[in-house]
Amino acid sequence: MEVVQVLCMKGGNGDTSYAKNSLVQKKVISLTKPIIEEAITNLYCNKFPTSLCIADLGCSSGPNTLFAVLEVVTTLDRVGKKMGRQLPEIQVFLNDLPGNDFNTIFKSLPRFQKDLEKRMGAGAESCFINGAPGSFYGRLFPSKSLHFIHSSYSLQWLSQIPQGLESNKGNIYMANSSPPCVLKAYYEQFQTDFSMFLRCRSEELLEGGSMVLTFLGRRSEDPSTKECCYIWELLAVALNDMVAEGLIEEEKMDSFNIPQYTPSPAEVKCEVEKEGSFTISRLEVSEVNWNAYHGEFCPSDAHKDGGYNVAKLMRAVAEPLLVSHFGDGMIEEVFSRYQKIVADRMSREKTEFINVTVSMTKRG
Amino acid sequence: MEVVQVLCMKGGNGDTSYAKNSLVQKKVISLTKPIIEEAITNLYCNKFPTSLCIADLGCSSGPNTLFAVLEVVTTLDRVGKKMGRQLPEIQVFLNDLPGNDFNTIFKSLPRFQKDLEKRMGAGAESCFINGAPGSFYGRLFPSKSLHFIHSSYSLQWLSQIPQGLESNKGNIYMANSSPPCVLKAYYEQFQTDFSMFLRCRSEELLEGGSMVLTFLGRRSEDPSTKECCYIWELLAVALNDMVAEGLIEEEKMDSFNIPQYTPSPAEVKCEVEKEGSFTISRLEVSEVNWNAYHGEFCPSDAHKDGGYNVAKLMRAVAEPLLVSHFGDGMIEEVFSRYQKIVADRMSREKTEFINVTVSMTKRG
Repeated sequence: MEVVQVLCMKGGNGDTSYAKNSLVQKKVISLTKPIIEEAITNLYCNKFPTSLCIADLGCSSGPNTLFAVLEVVTTLDRVGKKMGRQLPEIQVFLNDLPGNDFNTIFKSLPRFQKDLEKRMGAGAESCFINGAPGSFYGRLFPSKSLHFIHSSYSLQWLSQIPQGLESNKGNIYMANSSPPCVLKAYYEQFQTDFSMFLRCRSEELLEGGSMVLTFLGRRSEDPSTKECCYIWELLAVALNDMVAEGLIEEEKMDSFNIPQYTPSPAEVKCEVEKEGSFTISRLEVSEVNWNAYHGEFCPSDAHKDGGYNVAKLMRAVAEPLLVSHFGDGMIEEVFSRYQKIVADRMSREKTEFINVTVSMTKRG
Repeated sequence: MEVVQVLCMKGGNGDTSYAKNSLVQKKVISLTKPIIEEAITNLYCNKFPTSLCIADLGCSSGPNTLFAVLEVVTTLDRVGKKMGRQLPEIQVFLNDLPGNDFNTIFKSLPRFQKDLEKRMGAGAESCFINGAPGSFYGRLFPSKSLHFIHSSYSLQWLSQIPQGLESNKGNIYMANSSPPCVLKAYYEQFQTDFSMFLRCRSEELLEGGSMVLTFLGRRSEDPSTKECCYIWELLAVALNDMVAEGLIEEEKMDSFNIPQYTPSPAEVKCEVEKEGSFTISRLEVSEVNWNAYHGEFCPSDAHKDGGYNVAKLMRAVAEPLLVSHFGDGMIEEVFSRYQKIVADRMSREKTEFINVTVSMTKRG
């Protein structure tokens, strides 16, 4: 599921309309809705301004982009009405890298406003949507200007490929066979990036303001655990097969690594505590089956599409990274092999993505 | 000159890099620079916050877009230093219709940040650029959230083609031969739109905040004066010739009208006073030769390119309007004829665009 959002972060050439269907949206909402609602209720309990600024970081571009905003804004409306408050004016900032397709988001705004009116009635016209291009590993907004920050399935992307992965031969991400120095390099890059993220956001949030962040992550304390690395290990299998057949240079394969880190709840907590500006109110783990995309999960059916959906999703995420490293000549072959490998594994075991969601409030 | 900015407002398919050359940029700046500087100096004289919000309305998409912002931000920096003030954090909102090409603007931001650093040194990293898609004839920002508003060559575009132009046969804009009811319909649409613009901006600006707006306009009180209508009358000549030759249906021609109004300074002043929230500090008229685009103006040379540049500029502005009304089959022919007509007139008389610039401050 997470992959669905991720693909647009990386500017994937995959078929996003295929990937971003309404079932996925419903699943995203069902996971984070109560946590967002709680964070917003707390906002109303603090001193409440007549104008609210909220940001969605790593918004990507697709139906989910504005769906997340719709959810946050209608929650603000619903909770406010329950507490007898008038809905404030809301300024929304949609953030992603400058290369994100903001044009498509902006063109869909007239329709979004209509959806908002249908759900909220009067007040919908006081919601002002803006684009905020830039990396969330740097400052994006003026000091003390935001009340609420939301981010889904974006923060697992690192700002860069970690340094010092030379010995990660045969792997493309952290794996069972990665030497300790590789796991350390990945972890340190996560620490650098996430602490920078927290520092920037702590400057931008007002006191009492809050954040709800959902990452791709893991339950285990072992960073090379199957629950977060397996999906990439299978892609490495396909690539290594092609190296063995002389279709890909070994040197090229050895120097390819995915700029992602899937933290455990404890690692997230540790960085938040080190930074010191936030109080964590919730830290939760949830999971979604690899094939949840295809329909409500039914284990006995999960592999029946022959790995097609999972391979297609992963292709949307990984294709730009693979093409920029290997060129585009090998793409069809690698994903054809990957699909078969994925289908085989899914028929034999339970395969899941793990989400870590953290909700926190800026200290006074 | 104005045409250069306008083309992107209308989503023209013209060659914008051709139209938006640095000579045009320099001319825009030389015209409005002292007025912007005065408005910003006044801002510093009022109570000055640690964070400033500014907006460029109808920013379009091209090199001029960020050049205008660069000018405003470096003026803030320069004036602030002169007055011994520290540069505040600056939040910039670039506004245009949702169909504007924001992607191209956003992709050029890393380079813009470098230009800003070169000109300002430290402090450049505290300038945060956002996109604000929507019509400026409605609310775009929360109440009392802006300190400074800039707009160049956008406000002459009306929100729609005025109602009641049935009797404007043979013309495509206000013209000498337009009946009084047509001039009245155009004027009333301008009044409706500009008063709505002022009402929205007066809600969004903080007390003491200011606006510098530059329109295509006219000096004369006669709305059908040659100084603002001639360039369109020549396009009507080309279209009418094609009607006479049976290449365009007469009915189609009679129902085509340009959604623009080029007000006089007195008309601008009248609307500002009626709305009542602003004090005008400057109201000025300037002019640019039709062919200024081509180089520094030299009357004897102005027609030597055979009307090529003027026709190309006007095509960039008018093509989308013409295509949506007449279809695209007639475009080459109409602009080939237009170029010849323009070249002929430019060789015989002085041809200028008139700019009206107004600077005003929100009352306390």
